[in-house]
Amino acid sequence: MTTSSAVSLLRDLIRCPSVTPDDAGALGLLEGVLEQAGFETHRVVFSEQGYPDTDNLYARIGTSAPSLLFAGHTDVVPTGDASKWRFDPFSAEIAEGMIWGRGAVDMKGGIAAAVAATLAYVQTHGTPKGSIAFLITGDEEGPAVNGTVKLLEWAKLRGERFDHCILGEPTNPDQLGDMIKIGRRGSLSGSITVHGRQGHVGYPHLADNPVHHLVRIATALRATPLDNGTPHFDASNLEITSFDTGNPAVNVIPDEARAAFNIRFNDLWQPQSLADEIRSRVIAAAQGANFTLEFKPTNALAFLTEPGSFVEMVSDAIVAETGRKPVLSTTGGTSDARFICNYAQVVEFGLVGQTMHAIDERTPLNDVEKLAAIYGRVLDRYFA
Amino acid sequence: MTTSSAVSLLRDLIRCPSVTPDDAGALGLLEGVLEQAGFETHRVVFSEQGYPDTDNLYARIGTSAPSLLFAGHTDVVPTGDASKWRFDPFSAEIAEGMIWGRGAVDMKGGIAAAVAATLAYVQTHGTPKGSIAFLITGDEEGPAVNGTVKLLEWAKLRGERFDHCILGEPTNPDQLGDMIKIGRRGSLSGSITVHGRQGHVGYPHLADNPVHHLVRIATALRATPLDNGTPHFDASNLEITSFDTGNPAVNVIPDEARAAFNIRFNDLWQPQSLADEIRSRVIAAAQGANFTLEFKPTNALAFLTEPGSFVEMVSDAIVAETGRKPVLSTTGGTSDARFICNYAQVVEFGLVGQTMHAIDERTPLNDVEKLAAIYGRVLDRYFA
Repeated sequence: MTTSSAVSLLRDLIRCPSVTPDDAGALGLLEGVLEQAGFETHRVVFSEQGYPDTDNLYARIGTSAPSLLFAGHTDVVPTGDASKWRFDPFSAEIAEGMIWGRGAVDMKGGIAAAVAATLAYVQTHGTPKGSIAFLITGDEEGPAVNGTVKLLEWAKLRGERFDHCILGEPTNPDQLGDMIKIGRRGSLSGSITVHGRQGHVGYPHLADNPVHHLVRIATALRATPLDNGTPHFDASNLEITSFDTGNPAVNVIPDEARAAFNIRFNDLWQPQSLADEIRSRVIAAAQGANFTLEFKPTNALAFLTEPGSFVEMVSDAIVAETGRKPVLSTTGGTSDARFICNYAQVVEFGLVGQTMHAIDERTPLNDVEKLAAIYGRVLDRYFA
Repeated sequence: MTTSSAVSLLRDLIRCPSVTPDDAGALGLLEGVLEQAGFETHRVVFSEQGYPDTDNLYARIGTSAPSLLFAGHTDVVPTGDASKWRFDPFSAEIAEGMIWGRGAVDMKGGIAAAVAATLAYVQTHGTPKGSIAFLITGDEEGPAVNGTVKLLEWAKLRGERFDHCILGEPTNPDQLGDMIKIGRRGSLSGSITVHGRQGHVGYPHLADNPVHHLVRIATALRATPLDNGTPHFDASNLEITSFDTGNPAVNVIPDEARAAFNIRFNDLWQPQSLADEIRSRVIAAAQGANFTLEFKPTNALAFLTEPGSFVEMVSDAIVAETGRKPVLSTTGGTSDARFICNYAQVVEFGLVGQTMHAIDERTPLNDVEKLAAIYGRVLDRYFA
């Protein structure tokens, strides 16, 4: 099997309309080719009240260390209005040197490249001096409850250990080779409700305007930066995403005002230390006003895979195939890497993200083949 | 006719269920007694699309200066759940030395006292050396579109001139004699909409958060006092009455945020000068953010009747009847005095306001008689 089989595998994957939570045959397809190549495979379905059951795939070849994990998801976001697509979004049409379809870059392309590279490696070298594992979920784009988190716990209970992981999410802003993600910021959301006292605007001394208190609190939340960033992270950032009173009467001071916020934080913070900081800022700014501060439970911790031999190995492979030296970044949203980081050193590198979640999602065939070649170089060096 | 006829007239007025815009015979009752006493009377109905037609009464005795105007309204606010009243709200029951019913203090009591005092004066002295006029509307508690404003214009077109006016709204917080209103603050309302750019909280540099801009603008609006008050007025005050985004998604920076505000302002400001001040504060605080600032048209100007011989005359009459020296105040909401001030020096003095707009609205009979006696003393001295 050569790396050009990456495109053929990607085509088969796109043709499975695996919009979360449907699997539509995508995991079975991967299970088949991995099993044939000598992998031990497991299909694991997780359930939780209020969420759809979700299917997941775990596969491994080899039992010893070092162990390299490829992680990813076969589920995709909905197509939106399919008639707006140039080609049927699940037809995987090839045109203009590109393959078109939902999931092409996010992230069936990454999975196809990793599987093709692995099959080629195993075909040439046999079972590696160590282990190669695949951890593929069908629940990343949806509630993300019955996917990676549970599959990692399940694997741990089985005694599975991973040293390093590549998550093939689309990481490149413009061209293949632009960017490796070596960490991600964490995310913490919360809300503040100020309880005032309603009254007539003509008699403000008889009322207590919660809007004024909340404006003061909102100002204080952003007045001083949370931090100034760290060697690999931007400064943590707090955005106030809503501020509402729902008061239609211009001559009435409202009873209550509520704001919600989200913080993307770096490796200086844990959710608890950040919540403590926010609480102390709110208390100081409230100046005795009556408020309720609530945080949403979060599992989106900040993480960083310190640059070192593993990151260098991936970076070198990228340079060799693309001639571009990737930026080591920690920007952007969250990904399943925030869960994997508790089990292995994880980096993210995949295709170019420009068309992800968009109409006419597509990727150059050349990028898919190059990505497989990059993964192949990592495998060669990892088990050398 | 003696001042005790004030109670009997009040009783007849309460028995007209004149909830805005219904007249229910109230104006006809007044017209009858004034006509009988030698007044020239006019019933004037005003119409405007979208508002109910409203009946008004204008009456005058004498044609020369000085001219003293009694102003007021016979319409009343709804009773709410009539079964919660101790007595039927339009039965004008007398019990425990009080007369009970909707409008007793706001402000059929004030009108009954003024009419009774005037009839007594005319009975004793004949036509005054000057003029006494009544300007009574049936549209004060409602839209206030077809009432005092138009009736004043109508009178002006007829060549009617007024030197001084007493508006008999309930002005006393606790006891008859507490407070004369010699002015009122003005009122200006507006809204600010900040137009930002929607985006993902993970990529704040690609978005432009309107909440942050609006928080900064709201802070600036209240950062510096509009003024420090004037000899007879409190400082002008701005209340932010609403602040809304309507954004349910905590991971999305919203597109737009909107706040509304109301300003109660003193005699240092006109609506236009105040709007200019607000606009310059918003522009400075917006720091280039894209916003829309709108003001509601207002006819609620601030006004002040400078303390002088007329205010002193009313004050002296109050002291003589109640033994209390009234505070000269400009506090509280707006009243029709804001329109009258353009035509005459106006003061407001009436009954005790505690039960106005409430269930079991009522006034001591003694207060009604004392109020008539106070108005009678003013008439004596005004035309002496």
